[in-house]
Amino acid sequence: MTTTSTPAPPRIALHRDRLLPAEPATRGIARELYAAVRDLPIVSPHGHVPAQWLADDVPFPDPTALLITPDHYLTRLLHARGVPLADLGVGVADPTSAQSRAAFRLLCRHWPVFRGTPVKLWLEQVLVEVLGVDLVPSDDTADDLYDAIAERVADRGFRPRALYDRFGIDVLATTDDPCDDLAHHAALRDDPGWHGRVVPTFRPDRYLEAGLPGWADRVDALGEAAGVDTGSLAGWVDAMERRRAHFAEHGAVSADHGHRDAVMAPLDAAEGERLYARARAGHATPAEAETLRRGLLFEMARMSADDGLVMTLHPGVSRDHHAPSRERLGTDIGADIPVAAEFTEALRPVLHAFGTHPRFRLVVFTIDETTFSRELAPLAGFYPSLYVGAPWWFLDAPDAMDRYRAAVTETAGFAKTSGFVDDTRAYLSIPARHDASRRADAAYLARLVADHRLTLDEAHETARDLVTTIPREAFRL
Amino acid sequence: MTTTSTPAPPRIALHRDRLLPAEPATRGIARELYAAVRDLPIVSPHGHVPAQWLADDVPFPDPTALLITPDHYLTRLLHARGVPLADLGVGVADPTSAQSRAAFRLLCRHWPVFRGTPVKLWLEQVLVEVLGVDLVPSDDTADDLYDAIAERVADRGFRPRALYDRFGIDVLATTDDPCDDLAHHAALRDDPGWHGRVVPTFRPDRYLEAGLPGWADRVDALGEAAGVDTGSLAGWVDAMERRRAHFAEHGAVSADHGHRDAVMAPLDAAEGERLYARARAGHATPAEAETLRRGLLFEMARMSADDGLVMTLHPGVSRDHHAPSRERLGTDIGADIPVAAEFTEALRPVLHAFGTHPRFRLVVFTIDETTFSRELAPLAGFYPSLYVGAPWWFLDAPDAMDRYRAAVTETAGFAKTSGFVDDTRAYLSIPARHDASRRADAAYLARLVADHRLTLDEAHETARDLVTTIPREAFRL
Amino acid sequence: MTTTSTPAPPRIALHRDRLLPAEPATRGIARELYAAVRDLPIVSPHGHVPAQWLADDVPFPDPTALLITPDHYLTRLLHARGVPLADLGVGVADPTSAQSRAAFRLLCRHWPVFRGTPVKLWLEQVLVEVLGVDLVPSDDTADDLYDAIAERVADRGFRPRALYDRFGIDVLATTDDPCDDLAHHAALRDDPGWHGRVVPTFRPDRYLEAGLPGWADRVDALGEAAGVDTGSLAGWVDAMERRRAHFAEHGAVSADHGHRDAVMAPLDAAEGERLYARARAGHATPAEAETLRRGLLFEMARMSADDGLVMTLHPGVSRDHHAPSRERLGTDIGADIPVAAEFTEALRPVLHAFGTHPRFRLVVFTIDETTFSRELAPLAGFYPSLYVGAPWWFLDAPDAMDRYRAAVTETAGFAKTSGFVDDTRAYLSIPARHDASRRADAAYLARLVADHRLTLDEAHETARDLVTTIPREAFRL
Repeated sequence: MTTTSTPAPPRIALHRDRLLPAEPATRGIARELYAAVRDLPIVSPHGHVPAQWLADDVPFPDPTALLITPDHYLTRLLHARGVPLADLGVGVADPTSAQSRAAFRLLCRHWPVFRGTPVKLWLEQVLVEVLGVDLVPSDDTADDLYDAIAERVADRGFRPRALYDRFGIDVLATTDDPCDDLAHHAALRDDPGWHGRVVPTFRPDRYLEAGLPGWADRVDALGEAAGVDTGSLAGWVDAMERRRAHFAEHGAVSADHGHRDAVMAPLDAAEGERLYARARAGHATPAEAETLRRGLLFEMARMSADDGLVMTLHPGVSRDHHAPSRERLGTDIGADIPVAAEFTEALRPVLHAFGTHPRFRLVVFTIDETTFSRELAPLAGFYPSLYVGAPWWFLDAPDAMDRYRAAVTETAGFAKTSGFVDDTRAYLSIPARHDASRRADAAYLARLVADHRLTLDEAHETARDLVTTIPREAFRL
Repeated sequence: MTTTSTPAPPRIALHRDRLLPAEPATRGIARELYAAVRDLPIVSPHGHVPAQWLADDVPFPDPTALLITPDHYLTRLLHARGVPLADLGVGVADPTSAQSRAAFRLLCRHWPVFRGTPVKLWLEQVLVEVLGVDLVPSDDTADDLYDAIAERVADRGFRPRALYDRFGIDVLATTDDPCDDLAHHAALRDDPGWHGRVVPTFRPDRYLEAGLPGWADRVDALGEAAGVDTGSLAGWVDAMERRRAHFAEHGAVSADHGHRDAVMAPLDAAEGERLYARARAGHATPAEAETLRRGLLFEMARMSADDGLVMTLHPGVSRDHHAPSRERLGTDIGADIPVAAEFTEALRPVLHAFGTHPRFRLVVFTIDETTFSRELAPLAGFYPSLYVGAPWWFLDAPDAMDRYRAAVTETAGFAKTSGFVDDTRAYLSIPARHDASRRADAAYLARLVADHRLTLDEAHETARDLVTTIPREAFRL
Repeated sequence: MTTTSTPAPPRIALHRDRLLPAEPATRGIARELYAAVRDLPIVSPHGHVPAQWLADDVPFPDPTALLITPDHYLTRLLHARGVPLADLGVGVADPTSAQSRAAFRLLCRHWPVFRGTPVKLWLEQVLVEVLGVDLVPSDDTADDLYDAIAERVADRGFRPRALYDRFGIDVLATTDDPCDDLAHHAALRDDPGWHGRVVPTFRPDRYLEAGLPGWADRVDALGEAAGVDTGSLAGWVDAMERRRAHFAEHGAVSADHGHRDAVMAPLDAAEGERLYARARAGHATPAEAETLRRGLLFEMARMSADDGLVMTLHPGVSRDHHAPSRERLGTDIGADIPVAAEFTEALRPVLHAFGTHPRFRLVVFTIDETTFSRELAPLAGFYPSLYVGAPWWFLDAPDAMDRYRAAVTETAGFAKTSGFVDDTRAYLSIPARHDASRRADAAYLARLVADHRLTLDEAHETARDLVTTIPREAFRL
């Protein structure tokens, strides 16, 4: 179709120094620090890739279902520019191939929307390094890109297990419902052809929120899964402990919690049973449901101190902010919006109880950056049990990462941070996300070397720790 | 008076690279980006210049009344150093020429007070580029400066219309009371000798605040202006709709709102009428007045969705913080102090109702920087209707602008921001303010190019968009 | 013990350009600015060195008691890595020499914990410049370091008075209880061999907190010290005024206040007496105790306006966050954790009353960085009485200092800031702390020169002001 008069379409050029500081001497230091960690194995202690993909080594679907529809980082920005989510496949049960191609064209047409966002960085790196295509997305290139990607992912070398090796993943955590039988994890464990490490993560949020519809049924199901009667709070606790043990037997190292706030406040046994009974009967007021949830979360902390599963906390989000979209399209569509967070008072009771407990470990993530220097770094700089989680979600981006290190390090150093967490459903983007984090940390450390706060040797050790010992310690891996 | 032994007084040297990054390669990129947008026309979609100045092409007054007395950015800092506001002409009905000269001397004497603030940048640029004087203000130079400026502004070439052309203004928005007949705007429209564009902005705050003295009288006046009975809430709504239509006929593109908080919460009709009646009768409690205001603001949003006037929101300010000064000197004297802002919950009802409405557009400004990354960028990154306003007021300064871009861009990109808003009464400073914004954006974009997040071509397109398509889209110009 | 095959242990190399910007031209400017202020005398208007050290010129104790045990900046980070505080001597009445040496070894073993924190910078400078040892702390060097330091501090040249001269201290403020007779200050004043200036600071927190155990007894003691009956609020006020006068006679220039929040709210006389009486009788509810405290703090502001003692405020901290540690080890062990702060509304009544009062001066410190640009800089940019305190405690670190200047300067300039405050118990670290501040300010100013916001002359003047006229003005020294 091309003629001699058509200019060549622009190509993505991944610069080897991307995200490194512009000042030449500092860049030289950063380049050296980054080079030393670039190829170290990936430790991914928190994410959302389904274990089944690896257990069954399922082929990836069409380019839209692979790269667009499930990635709310991407669909939200297109929606913000007026693209209906359904046109991107969100909430569409079985999109036709024409629909998928049309959705891919929308992404390409709106490509400039992603300028300055990490989505551009991740997707460029996925296209070039994982998929081997380097056309800049646009109306002109959409179909060529679509076809090239479709062809590439049809190849056996692009199945999940092959990519697991190619990506250099050392350990990958999934996120799982307490009732999950973890059959895929068991299958992987028992598969002589599999030599990777995929560990489940216990995610019990829905069983703590008595204010949400269907809670009582879910708690019944929990009891069934655990083989105990969850008719009482004592039964709920027993069921949770059993399911946590089931997860631990299947390799779990952490339990993840994401509620509106970070408050954990113990209930005395009688009051707990009373609230639990009212909630079971559907009579709990919103305030009672909240009190119960905070009491149950305290119980989860207590269990973490007992069984050693690292407790991770992701609070401070107003979920499903746009009710009409939730009703039409469901949850996890990019309409969760952060709210201000508070930790100093919220965590006081749990830190009173377990803050110096040798088996308790609490990793706190936030999107409220104001808490990094004000609350989380001071807390992590005193309590041996508390770690400041890596910049999460909207903050998983180069400038935000720099602000995170600048806000946390002077008060808590490096050792009380969590190491990078990709938190992603987008399997293909895992290397790009970890790479961006390694570059950002190299950039930050280079700055400390350049103004003589660290020696180069100290920075080298720290850069290495940040991708090796530090995430392994924080997540007990 | 000078002798051979007096050293020459220091001169202001406006460096062509001011506000551009120091690192040479990054500066080179920034210089190129800035050069490409430096001379593009000024779009000023929100400000406080009176339309009458242009309608009547009124000559400017003496240097103090021109540059000092009405500019609370400047008087507040002198007041903070102990200069009584009255000595600067604030609240003085008819200052003598001796008083004006004395006030100008105070500015010059305290010139070092402005170091590090944007007032210094703006005023230096006004002196050199607009007024053609370059003496550094000081005790020694005060009188010479005063005389030189007085002479300059007496020239016909310094009338508002001549400056409008010289400044390259494409469109200038004023801010107007709903009862204003907009005669000056009409006069400009009908003036065959005028080829500029001056549009009114609907600013109804005072008609929503039933807790402020005189509210009932103002609402009566509103009814009179609209030709309807505002004795009921339905009448108030009708009157507002008519006045908005009047503004739209005169070219208005937006309605501006500045209350203590951003909450908009619909009232059902009966409850609304009940509260309105109590407020009319002077019986509303402060809590009722607040509930009513939040309901009325929701109504304004609903009207914006109907008539397409862009809704702009400037919440989060404690007005007239120092009551004794307000009593002596009135409002708008630099004693408005920001408070913490909240948007995620405050805007939920209005975004539920109109967040994806094709005619609704909401531009949110804040002085609480914490909300940029935590709330506003996430909201703008999902809702097609919502735009993040440029850094406003105290944040209209180089470092704050950089923090704004760094906080917003990674989550919401560039396209969901508002473009620059000068928000000023200081007509002469309009070019300097827009220039500072263009420099700051060039500096930010250059940084993204220097660390290979954007190509130079992408940065050029974005720099141009930021002063052309983006403000025009956000404000429907 | 060393043999030819052992590599030489690494040495601390203090780089002359540490903390200065990496970009060469900017560094050149910063180097010049720093050089011009490096050796200016130290003004330390707020700190915690005991006056007795200087009055009696007491020899320093062993290295652990000198450098580790009393310094909670340091012990908290070791505790956060699992070192029991008692192993560092905290709460240990009379540690053996073996215990002290073991504690010192723990510091050395965990030396990498301090990477990226100011503790590393301070301690490296103390070791090299004050103590003349330059071994990098580690397991291998711990004993050599311990012995070298012990030997050094046994020397007469390391007594407090000799160091006062060597450090170039011009004035040093202590922090003292209102009941303190200030005998050590008097002794210094009357000592013909002493030519320094050590001033007390009035710190009455414990007498305002009726909610804390022992309050009534403390108030009795206050009455005794003042020679008045504190059985009534009027008596309490009288006693405070007398003790403040006693402090002023002994050279005090400020009164320091640190409560949970910054609220000051006047009580009418009858209500005040009623609450005071209830509190004296032990019947005040927590809410009443809080109301009383806020009323008493307002009284302290009123006294400051009367007697001219500068009021300094350090609010926003949750003290003794970990109750079990407090019970075992006492207070001031590094377990105080910041909370969000609010100033705009909290300070409104006191600024209404005294905001433009010529004798009232209020310096506000915070660890909640969000208030710098949102509240404190706007307040200081209007009220002549209000100054923004230097970055305090966790924020006394290079990156935080840069954020502070960037957040405050554009709105309030330099003249309404307090100058550096070391706030330290660690006498040996005073020069290192002031040096870091001077370097950070030089770095910030150099950036303004490099992008042409300030001329080099303006920056020189400002750099000098920041360590001379500005702290002297803020603290009336």
